[in-house]
Amino acid sequence: MTLGARIMELSEAAARHSEPGPGVTRLLGSPEHQALLRDLTGWMQTAGLSTELDAAGNLVGRTAAVPGAKTLIIGSHQDSVRQGGRYDGMLGVLLPLVVLEDLHRHGTALPLNIELVAFSDEEGARFASTLVGSSALAGQFDASILQAVDAQGVSLAQALRDLGSNPDGIADLARNPEQITGFLEVHIEQGPVLESLDLPVGIVSAITGIERHKVTVTGQAGHAGTTPMELRRDALVAATEIVRAVDQHCRQNDNLVGVVGELTVTPNAVNVIPSRVELTIELRSPNRDIRHAARQRLFADLDARLAATPCQWQHDLVYQQDEVACAPALQQRLARAIEAEHFWPHTLFSGAGHDGLAMHHLTEVGMLFVRCAGGLSHHPDEAITAADADAAARVLRRCLLDWEAHTE
Amino acid sequence: MTLGARIMELSEAAARHSEPGPGVTRLLGSPEHQALLRDLTGWMQTAGLSTELDAAGNLVGRTAAVPGAKTLIIGSHQDSVRQGGRYDGMLGVLLPLVVLEDLHRHGTALPLNIELVAFSDEEGARFASTLVGSSALAGQFDASILQAVDAQGVSLAQALRDLGSNPDGIADLARNPEQITGFLEVHIEQGPVLESLDLPVGIVSAITGIERHKVTVTGQAGHAGTTPMELRRDALVAATEIVRAVDQHCRQNDNLVGVVGELTVTPNAVNVIPSRVELTIELRSPNRDIRHAARQRLFADLDARLAATPCQWQHDLVYQQDEVACAPALQQRLARAIEAEHFWPHTLFSGAGHDGLAMHHLTEVGMLFVRCAGGLSHHPDEAITAADADAAARVLRRCLLDWEAHTE
Repeated sequence: MTLGARIMELSEAAARHSEPGPGVTRLLGSPEHQALLRDLTGWMQTAGLSTELDAAGNLVGRTAAVPGAKTLIIGSHQDSVRQGGRYDGMLGVLLPLVVLEDLHRHGTALPLNIELVAFSDEEGARFASTLVGSSALAGQFDASILQAVDAQGVSLAQALRDLGSNPDGIADLARNPEQITGFLEVHIEQGPVLESLDLPVGIVSAITGIERHKVTVTGQAGHAGTTPMELRRDALVAATEIVRAVDQHCRQNDNLVGVVGELTVTPNAVNVIPSRVELTIELRSPNRDIRHAARQRLFADLDARLAATPCQWQHDLVYQQDEVACAPALQQRLARAIEAEHFWPHTLFSGAGHDGLAMHHLTEVGMLFVRCAGGLSHHPDEAITAADADAAARVLRRCLLDWEAHTE
Repeated sequence: MTLGARIMELSEAAARHSEPGPGVTRLLGSPEHQALLRDLTGWMQTAGLSTELDAAGNLVGRTAAVPGAKTLIIGSHQDSVRQGGRYDGMLGVLLPLVVLEDLHRHGTALPLNIELVAFSDEEGARFASTLVGSSALAGQFDASILQAVDAQGVSLAQALRDLGSNPDGIADLARNPEQITGFLEVHIEQGPVLESLDLPVGIVSAITGIERHKVTVTGQAGHAGTTPMELRRDALVAATEIVRAVDQHCRQNDNLVGVVGELTVTPNAVNVIPSRVELTIELRSPNRDIRHAARQRLFADLDARLAATPCQWQHDLVYQQDEVACAPALQQRLARAIEAEHFWPHTLFSGAGHDGLAMHHLTEVGMLFVRCAGGLSHHPDEAITAADADAAARVLRRCLLDWEAHTE
């Protein structure tokens, strides 16, 4: 059986641990999570790993200790969004697991220690928090989040206890940076770039920076029959300037994407002139200088466009997170392994957030993307091929085996 | 006391019959409606009218019969929208009432019979139906509507019984067209035109025709971070073409107004590319030829605009109501009376619907508009001045006194 076939087999087995479909719904601390951990513990042990369920709900599998060697953490998250796919997160656990299983079966020793981690929660689909598991390892866990409750009023602390974890111990999970050599994550691309280039894998240059703005456009309500056109202050007509400007500005820059994803009209009645529109602007870039400059240009343009309407507008920056650059050394290791496996080492940035956002506080971060069908993710139809899984597994195996040869 | 002052006094008294504020909320068959009818009956009797609460909940006040003369129906509706103003509807009952009271006090006989009607329901704020009272007089009442229920499950039939009306008798309310010479309604403008022209009153040329379309724009959802701009099919960006085109086309034609009043984005999340937008297009014109031609031009333009986007669209005409032209003879009577009172006889169309939409099935319709502050209506701040009420009352009195002189 190829590595790819084994990865697909385990992915299918893991996907069965889900709330009723469509797709995979497996939330932190749920019965599905508990059932998955039982299977995953068995698979890790078959791969020769010693296993531990830690205080943050992470399942950690360790290779036999290599005296004097540092530790590479490899992993991704076990949880899904509601009605998501089977590869987002889990591929980053199962693919390295199959590689380690293969090395174990062949009795091949690695020149470094590996901690394979199935993080408890990255998506935040059950609680308001995200990156629970990786924050804990990185020493970034905010204990106040333990009081967060889900829709049924169950706290995060209780969910971790349901899993068999004792959240009182989370503070002790922080790794010593001296002993860690890096964090490596394999993840589906969640976008269409690799597919459009006909490549099975790609090297991630950075996890995107994100900023979000809340915008309100204020006009004046009025009877849509009795108010002459020239006396109207239609907030929706004015808001179209914003939707279009965001799209236009982002199309002018390769390293910038943006969207007006939320837009709500008040009073939203067929025969009333819209008096208020609330909308969100999101901008993402792997480079904060590009993002800041784009923001400045966009908002100057919007000031001019809105001034030409009879409406007012205001905007607040409500969220901002700088990009996390992947370490050049880890990018080079991945590039060498990809070339050795006879693929083209294409570099792209991740437009989505990942566990690396927390892990970079602890250590250098590297990511390997795997092509996914149609760029579709967070969807029941999320798909990869066994051939691509196999390619990515061979790249990872090569990268680990060659670790010492390329130690800087 | 001037006619205007008396109208303001009665308007204030009538406005007290309301659910707790802000504004006036007086729905068909409500305790507030019942209390108003008691006051209104007394006021009508003081004005020398004989009164009758009919089977449809209309309160009808009749002048002493003039042998051989036809009957002019004058009136408007007693009900309001939720948290509406005190003049929409009620002014068209109280203003003629004060005129008739004045004539009665002076012992002035009119050359025709008057039925002053406070229609039970025009707004339809309690039941799905509208124009309940006027439909009954016009012989247009659809008895199946009696089964309509309000939010508490009370039927329209029951609401009428609560009022003291017996809905079984509605079919007998239809007037004989042979005996009716017309229907005249006084109403606040609900728009800003008279205010912008500094005129107290205006002659209505037509009650607007209306058409409504439901539109769906379909794109493709996608992760707003991972989908490159050039691969997006953003339904909201495409929908801005529609919002802008409706506004632009209507600005090119004096006898056309239109709006996109409702717009809903799916999935409406800050970080997801909009996959679907549903919106409404409403067009209004006092001339169906203008409206039909405008629709044709607009939709041809939209076909071209949407074809240039990566999204699809579909649209359905979900409501259409032709305009009701006001009778030239009644417009002339009002114009002569306005000139005789030394005002400019400005003609404008009504962008809103009124009881005339039902009454035109029975007889010729005429409407006199009264200036309202800021064009504001369906709002607690709806306001008129005593001077304007006085001007409109003198115009109506003049019109009635001169009726025979100008009989065609």
